[in-house]
Amino acid sequence: MNKLERIVEHDAGARAVRRCEELGCEPYSDMRGGLFRPYLGAAHKAAMATLRGWMHDAGMSVRTDPAGTVIGRYEGAEANAPALLIGSHIDSVWNGGFYDGALGVMLGVECVAAFASRGIRLPFALEVVAFGDEEGSRFPLSMLGSRAMAGKAVGDVSQMRDRTGATLHEAMRGAGLDVGRMGEARRNRQDILAYLEAHIEQGPVLEHADAPLAAVSAIAGIQRFYVRVQGQAGHAGTVPLSMRRDALAAACEMVLGIEALARAHVDDFVATVGKIEAHPGAVNVIPGSASLSVEIRSADAQCLERAFLQVKDLVGGIAGRRHVGWEVQDHQTFAPAPCDGRLVDLLRSGIRAEGMPEHVLVSGAGHDAMMMTDWVPTAMLFLRSPGGISHHPDESVIVADVQAAFAVMVNFITRLPEVLDISARQGTVV
Amino acid sequence: MNKLERIVEHDAGARAVRRCEELGCEPYSDMRGGLFRPYLGAAHKAAMATLRGWMHDAGMSVRTDPAGTVIGRYEGAEANAPALLIGSHIDSVWNGGFYDGALGVMLGVECVAAFASRGIRLPFALEVVAFGDEEGSRFPLSMLGSRAMAGKAVGDVSQMRDRTGATLHEAMRGAGLDVGRMGEARRNRQDILAYLEAHIEQGPVLEHADAPLAAVSAIAGIQRFYVRVQGQAGHAGTVPLSMRRDALAAACEMVLGIEALARAHVDDFVATVGKIEAHPGAVNVIPGSASLSVEIRSADAQCLERAFLQVKDLVGGIAGRRHVGWEVQDHQTFAPAPCDGRLVDLLRSGIRAEGMPEHVLVSGAGHDAMMMTDWVPTAMLFLRSPGGISHHPDESVIVADVQAAFAVMVNFITRLPEVLDISARQGTVV
Repeated sequence: MNKLERIVEHDAGARAVRRCEELGCEPYSDMRGGLFRPYLGAAHKAAMATLRGWMHDAGMSVRTDPAGTVIGRYEGAEANAPALLIGSHIDSVWNGGFYDGALGVMLGVECVAAFASRGIRLPFALEVVAFGDEEGSRFPLSMLGSRAMAGKAVGDVSQMRDRTGATLHEAMRGAGLDVGRMGEARRNRQDILAYLEAHIEQGPVLEHADAPLAAVSAIAGIQRFYVRVQGQAGHAGTVPLSMRRDALAAACEMVLGIEALARAHVDDFVATVGKIEAHPGAVNVIPGSASLSVEIRSADAQCLERAFLQVKDLVGGIAGRRHVGWEVQDHQTFAPAPCDGRLVDLLRSGIRAEGMPEHVLVSGAGHDAMMMTDWVPTAMLFLRSPGGISHHPDESVIVADVQAAFAVMVNFITRLPEVLDISARQGTVV
Repeated sequence: MNKLERIVEHDAGARAVRRCEELGCEPYSDMRGGLFRPYLGAAHKAAMATLRGWMHDAGMSVRTDPAGTVIGRYEGAEANAPALLIGSHIDSVWNGGFYDGALGVMLGVECVAAFASRGIRLPFALEVVAFGDEEGSRFPLSMLGSRAMAGKAVGDVSQMRDRTGATLHEAMRGAGLDVGRMGEARRNRQDILAYLEAHIEQGPVLEHADAPLAAVSAIAGIQRFYVRVQGQAGHAGTVPLSMRRDALAAACEMVLGIEALARAHVDDFVATVGKIEAHPGAVNVIPGSASLSVEIRSADAQCLERAFLQVKDLVGGIAGRRHVGWEVQDHQTFAPAPCDGRLVDLLRSGIRAEGMPEHVLVSGAGHDAMMMTDWVPTAMLFLRSPGGISHHPDESVIVADVQAAFAVMVNFITRLPEVLDISARQGTVV
């Protein structure tokens, strides 16, 4: 039995799962009969306290940074060595699942516990980071913790309000934090070696492929916009079909056109229309205007731009044939976030070492890792999502998959010096 | 110059139009900057009072029936002769037009004035009826006045509430009416000879045909229902197109299928999807369920039934191919209401006598006349709607069209004994 095999605890995965479940109800949820753990709510604060205890028990020194991120540190062989961050988030959406975010944090705790319990010091520090606001389920801004840590500008958000009218300023004060000092959550680049996040896939691809794990090659970029269609309202009984300029019919043709475009470019991007509205929206009135949301996701920035133009062409063509007006509004672009190639390969090799099929996926969903990719070498490990279900109480994981993820993460940590030139890093002595 | 030519006042149409405009603002409207005259509101009561004055001035005895319908009666040659009812409604939708409903009433007043001012007594009485609740813009039931007059069951509606929470009972009491006595608005069948309603077309057909007037052959029946589609919600970034069961995409295909079906049956029916919803309705979530309203209108009951079945087949086929569930809910059927063939012909001949193209239309919109067709011989005369616009402040009429409608109505009244066997009617002596 080699050293690696010895440190892969056989119940680590089960414990990580059990802890996610333990955090799934009161006092760790702010809703009855389901999980809702928004940023800095009572449930989040209770989860932070319990997590600090688990981190401490695993051998970490624990602190909370000025953005409310709980950070547990396990020193390397030398004090103040740069750290591999292992993290994810512990907030949730309304009526969410137990594992989205929390599982990545609990796996981080297990990884540290495995090394610490054997007194193994690595040539770098390990830090488990539990972000508090990935989902944006309380305030209208997501990934606040990871943004702050990576030093991304967030603007003056102190007066953002939640649904009850409470400001971020007030919410942070209630957690013993000062919104004015959030910038101090920023870490020095040279203190960070890399970032590793394990997360459920939140989609059906691995299940369909009968694969427990995948390395993530990139987090998809997003083109998000609304198409507004202007037709002519009219009485549903008095206007012949030939004289109509039905905005909803035009919008529906656009929805199907966008779907067909995405099907024809299946390896390049996905596109989704999630919202549609018809006005005035009465059973007996021909819709005079309509709007639809469009979201295009791709790992390739050029492909994303091309898809946006293709959708615009499509929309314009349909509008022209149907004699309706159209415009694109509220266009937002989020650039794709590529993971570090060396770290992707390291995860792949770890998955292979577990005797599992070696999958590489693009993450269609956003993650805290998005905030990291242009800052430090970043890796993401996906775990199969049964039924592809997430953001829902039926979200689940398979314990054996979690155990395998744990093994792949330990492998990753152990072999990290092979792919990152740790000795050369500023201030680091192996 | 024959007798008919002499009684066609050359300013009757202009006066009818002017009166509609006069009723278009305060105190005859319950909204500022537009017209809103809901049943038994302050504006409606003010309009009733002014209308009673106009009816009186035209030579009528005036009463208000227990449903709030203002009735002006001009006796025939013999007292208590059965009456030709000439009417429409004086309530309006929110921010409506001046002419929808009111014009038919004002034309009725002009018709009586034309005969009365010359002391001409007809072999039947004329009654101008101004219904107060055709639009259903206050309480959730339309055509209350005409329903009550024709003795149609309305159930116990005394506790229906308007948006402010006021009950029908309270609204009627505030107008000096007793909801418990509404049934007394029912007229004896033998006292009614026929019903004639002039109304704006509310559609673009006559304008496109360059025709001022049309006789209405029938008021279309309606099949109205909702289609609910059940797919599978999912993350917009993580579920490949091939694994989606997108409820909105399925619904959009149904909308286009229904549109194509209606285009292919252009002489049989029209179909409209006026409402659509996608759930959860988030920009980044594949819709898990969707619903759409469907309304099919046709003058032919069999065609209406066939169209309903065709839409169901279409919906089922799309749902099957896309692996989504579906059901039809809240299905309502309103039977077509055919006008009296003899009276249609009488209107056509009157239109022809005016040197105008002789159009016969199906009314796609509902009217008080719907309540009459299975009770008394019913006729409807449509006036061209510029731009096809109604239920909107831009609704308008052309004065020359209104003058022509007046002439056709006088012709209709004068020649009515030719087509209805008035002498044989119970209790009537010509």
